[in-house]
Amino acid sequence: MVLLDGKKLADEIKLEISREVKQLQAAGAKTPHLATILVGNDGGSLTYVGKKMESCKEVGFNSTLLRFEDTITESDLLAEVKKLNNNPDIDGFIVQFPLPKHINPNKVIMTIDPKKDVDGFHPMNVGRMALGLPAYVSATPLGITKILERYNITTEGKHCVVIGRSNIVGRPISILLSGQAKTGNATVTVCHSKTKNIKEIALTADIIIAAMGRPGFVTADMVKEGAVVIDVGTTRVTDASAKKGWRLKGDVKYDEVASKCSAITPVPGGVGPMTVVSLLLNTLKAAKNEIE
Amino acid sequence: MVLLDGKKLADEIKLEISREVKQLQAAGAKTPHLATILVGNDGGSLTYVGKKMESCKEVGFNSTLLRFEDTITESDLLAEVKKLNNNPDIDGFIVQFPLPKHINPNKVIMTIDPKKDVDGFHPMNVGRMALGLPAYVSATPLGITKILERYNITTEGKHCVVIGRSNIVGRPISILLSGQAKTGNATVTVCHSKTKNIKEIALTADIIIAAMGRPGFVTADMVKEGAVVIDVGTTRVTDASAKKGWRLKGDVKYDEVASKCSAITPVPGGVGPMTVVSLLLNTLKAAKNEIE
Repeated sequence: MVLLDGKKLADEIKLEISREVKQLQAAGAKTPHLATILVGNDGGSLTYVGKKMESCKEVGFNSTLLRFEDTITESDLLAEVKKLNNNPDIDGFIVQFPLPKHINPNKVIMTIDPKKDVDGFHPMNVGRMALGLPAYVSATPLGITKILERYNITTEGKHCVVIGRSNIVGRPISILLSGQAKTGNATVTVCHSKTKNIKEIALTADIIIAAMGRPGFVTADMVKEGAVVIDVGTTRVTDASAKKGWRLKGDVKYDEVASKCSAITPVPGGVGPMTVVSLLLNTLKAAKNEIE
Repeated sequence: MVLLDGKKLADEIKLEISREVKQLQAAGAKTPHLATILVGNDGGSLTYVGKKMESCKEVGFNSTLLRFEDTITESDLLAEVKKLNNNPDIDGFIVQFPLPKHINPNKVIMTIDPKKDVDGFHPMNVGRMALGLPAYVSATPLGITKILERYNITTEGKHCVVIGRSNIVGRPISILLSGQAKTGNATVTVCHSKTKNIKEIALTADIIIAAMGRPGFVTADMVKEGAVVIDVGTTRVTDASAKKGWRLKGDVKYDEVASKCSAITPVPGGVGPMTVVSLLLNTLKAAKNEIE
């Protein structure tokens, strides 16, 4: 069984990115610059944003954090987004979700210039990705394809079962895996809360992508001997024995599933670190104007 | 076995549209107006465009055909597209494909204002559809959902096998059927040229969407007793006994498959007429400014 070590892979890719940043700088190009808008004081959001900023630093990107109180009006926030759209020094930016309830997240996404949308949430990028055109692919699905690619797991002709159909993971990864790009050409089945026989379908999978956000949902009796299992779940589960009072739990019962797999991602240390590094890859693309 | 009569359904929907046009006119609103750009003299394209124009007339829409020689330059064609974008009398328009080889179809699609893109080919509309936002859905997948809806074929919890992953049929219909809209919530498997065991997978389908453009590909031994079969194929196959010298052939061997099905679309007279009527539905939406 191969442990798909997202942490190690992310470190390797960060090293590659930092080398490329130095080359860009040596050639007189500008340093890639990622900006982040953070509204309010959500604990999870603070952690994620902190990791992203730190990763920027590690690879030599410039990064800017714009923080606003959760009382900011929608129109003021949209004005801030437009400022970033028009700021030539910012190559790409993200708005950290969730937003306060009085702000419509779709309006925010639609206001981001697709050319700076390094989270790949704008319909223009989702559509370009679905049509097989160059696009910013959102970070988690991009991270999954990088794991498959770097660990030489071929997808062509394989049966991939994607459990979950969210806009930021299940939907895009199912499109990518069944598309014609490098980590594509798989036969893909999309399962979700309305699927009746998930166990039966999962058992036919060569590759399982578990992305429904239900801790421990995928059990050993759902996995074929020799399957590859990618666990996208990262639910915080209360655990008094943990220093923080909680632990990250994946959607896969790792302890019982791992021994049946040919390869599996752990949680934490699997898809998570690859998500952050994918954001860096998109920012690098933005700095190099590789989309459109 | 229920024959899913696309011709009859299309006629019903056209009647509904024409009633709505009269209501709009009575309320002082403008008459919906569809424009079509046709480049060159391709026989198939002339037929399709003719049908679309005729259907506009039937429902009381205004329609405009702009024809250009196949020697038109790409930049001149893009200028014509921009003129339609800026013409307030045109609610929606389409550019009939295929285009001559010296014109990049993606450039043309990207130049169309997504708000007038009633073919639903622009990445913005594809992305909006994938994200579950209001969008122009391209005509063939929209027509398929209308057939399922009007014939009360529930998709929730069903296993739909989509054979084909083209940008205009397989990809969008697989997204719609697995999404959360009315004709959605199905478990969807996308098969294509790289799928190894299509027969085995098709046999598990409650609903088969055959959209690979290979005449007679789906045979009786691939279809479960009681399945619903939607045949999207429309290949012109030479046939000396036919008046035109060719016949339209579907992707399904109708003669042997029909008796096993609970419902099936014929070719011609199934999905084809519903595709034209879906374009009318999109144009009506455009006239009513229902998207965005």
